[in-house]
Amino acid sequence: MENRPTIENIRVAHQRIRPYIHKTPVLTCNALNEIVGANLFFKCENFQKVGAFKFRGACNTVFSLSNSEASRGVVTHSSGNHAAALALAARKRGISPRIVMPSNAPKVKIEAVKNYGGIITFCEPTLASRESTAAKVIEETGATMIHPFNDYRIIAGQGTAALELIEEIIDLDYILAPVGGGGLLSGTAITAKALKPTIKIIGCEPKNADDAYRSIKAGKIIPPDNPNTIADGLKTSLGNKTFPIIRELVDKIVLVTEEQIITAMRYIFERMKIIVEPSSAVAFAVLLSKKLNVTDKNVGIIISGGNVDFSKFFEGIRCK
Amino acid sequence: MENRPTIENIRVAHQRIRPYIHKTPVLTCNALNEIVGANLFFKCENFQKVGAFKFRGACNTVFSLSNSEASRGVVTHSSGNHAAALALAARKRGISPRIVMPSNAPKVKIEAVKNYGGIITFCEPTLASRESTAAKVIEETGATMIHPFNDYRIIAGQGTAALELIEEIIDLDYILAPVGGGGLLSGTAITAKALKPTIKIIGCEPKNADDAYRSIKAGKIIPPDNPNTIADGLKTSLGNKTFPIIRELVDKIVLVTEEQIITAMRYIFERMKIIVEPSSAVAFAVLLSKKLNVTDKNVGIIISGGNVDFSKFFEGIRCK
Repeated sequence: MENRPTIENIRVAHQRIRPYIHKTPVLTCNALNEIVGANLFFKCENFQKVGAFKFRGACNTVFSLSNSEASRGVVTHSSGNHAAALALAARKRGISPRIVMPSNAPKVKIEAVKNYGGIITFCEPTLASRESTAAKVIEETGATMIHPFNDYRIIAGQGTAALELIEEIIDLDYILAPVGGGGLLSGTAITAKALKPTIKIIGCEPKNADDAYRSIKAGKIIPPDNPNTIADGLKTSLGNKTFPIIRELVDKIVLVTEEQIITAMRYIFERMKIIVEPSSAVAFAVLLSKKLNVTDKNVGIIISGGNVDFSKFFEGIRCK
Repeated sequence: MENRPTIENIRVAHQRIRPYIHKTPVLTCNALNEIVGANLFFKCENFQKVGAFKFRGACNTVFSLSNSEASRGVVTHSSGNHAAALALAARKRGISPRIVMPSNAPKVKIEAVKNYGGIITFCEPTLASRESTAAKVIEETGATMIHPFNDYRIIAGQGTAALELIEEIIDLDYILAPVGGGGLLSGTAITAKALKPTIKIIGCEPKNADDAYRSIKAGKIIPPDNPNTIADGLKTSLGNKTFPIIRELVDKIVLVTEEQIITAMRYIFERMKIIVEPSSAVAFAVLLSKKLNVTDKNVGIIISGGNVDFSKFFEGIRCK
């Protein structure tokens, strides 16, 4: 895919991935509606396969490959949700998913990738080592590199979450999505602006990783400056494919503090009884922060994922 | 209500409480189906108002009171989910909920009861003090005492969860429910055996609080012997109203270890991305334990509640 995806491309992507993905539910919660003073619609990609929206993009990309490309497998050097998503998508197509991971990656992430059938090659925990190791894998196998967000097939896949959301809730005024590398946000914006141009698209970002906010302000990609946030999925820089889409179609980027992210996550745990990862809580944090006036509006929120490390929590329970 | 509830009473209860309760969803999870080798249907009362099935029974009881009874309010000396449920049910009817709580009750439980409008009277942390304080409240106000489980109106209310489950999933072979005081289990058994006598009803109990198991074996109520389980909702003894129903209609009581309960809770958190309290995990723990052969069967599981204290978890996140 050489051009920015259109809504038609996103519809095709949806048809392509439909046999493999979950159509995730849209949940509502009276208690949270009352707190915010708006009608909130949570598109729950935490219930997606591998526990994150990333499976949509990975699936679309893997099933877009030609047979001859596919036969040589796929490779990535992300160690988060994209790695697990790519591993599972490759397994669904019956091809080899090679995942380059730093040797110091958390055990829980290594296990997840292995569980989904990923073939792991460990590297040093530096970007240089990740890239050279991936290059070596490609040289040896001919595998196709699948970038976690800076790829139009990925962007088209991520846009299918908003497609389902808007088809189910027809009168949305806003859609909020977190922004890291920008795959989810740019896909969401293309879908929403094509289907209903009046929907306002809000990118939600941690103040401690505000590179997208600064990039939009500067009119060019500004890489993150030593980002330190619990929303670890949002530390990445925008890419040259996601940035122009976001600049053109996203109405606003709103920043939230770490405290606001944690409070939002806790509200969602305690009131909705669902598990969301910190990156997902960033969008609800924007609403709690009152930095965006959505009073009485219909607000869609894309809950991006639910992969939380509960090791310490369960150790704590055990100790009682 | 002077006699054991029938399915007709449970249907009437359902009509009575329907305007106030959530019709909770029945969730499925491929990953957990594969692990157990059966088709699991989780009736998610963790999404019920106040985060637990207890709201059904409290609501049925409060709305069963005559106007003159109701005008004098209601009282209980439970400090858990029943207290919150009674407080909210009373607020829905516009009457006073008086809750007797030990002075050393966890702050999170005190806050929950206050949030739902409960009027708290603190007492010493002994059963004698709880009972005498409640008696005093009744003397002063004429409020009606609402027992958390040993009351036919409560039992009928709790039976409505199984009613919704069986109406939605018509071909269940088993229903599993946790057993503490027995309100949920006895209501579930009455409903299921009336609607489909072939459904096997399994009571699920921690080994460390195995009083129901021992009571059934002995043919009389055996009080718990210093129960020590993380499933703190299941420490109570059966009552003289719940015991005969359970003895007659429940097919089996299966015990699980603390380790199995924690493992089950973690599976549900990590695979289903929903929050369940330890008492709820006990039923899934029975399936993981392989102490019950349900291979290829359709198994309903009543997830009783989702009120978990996450204070330490979020403090841990904050410290990073």
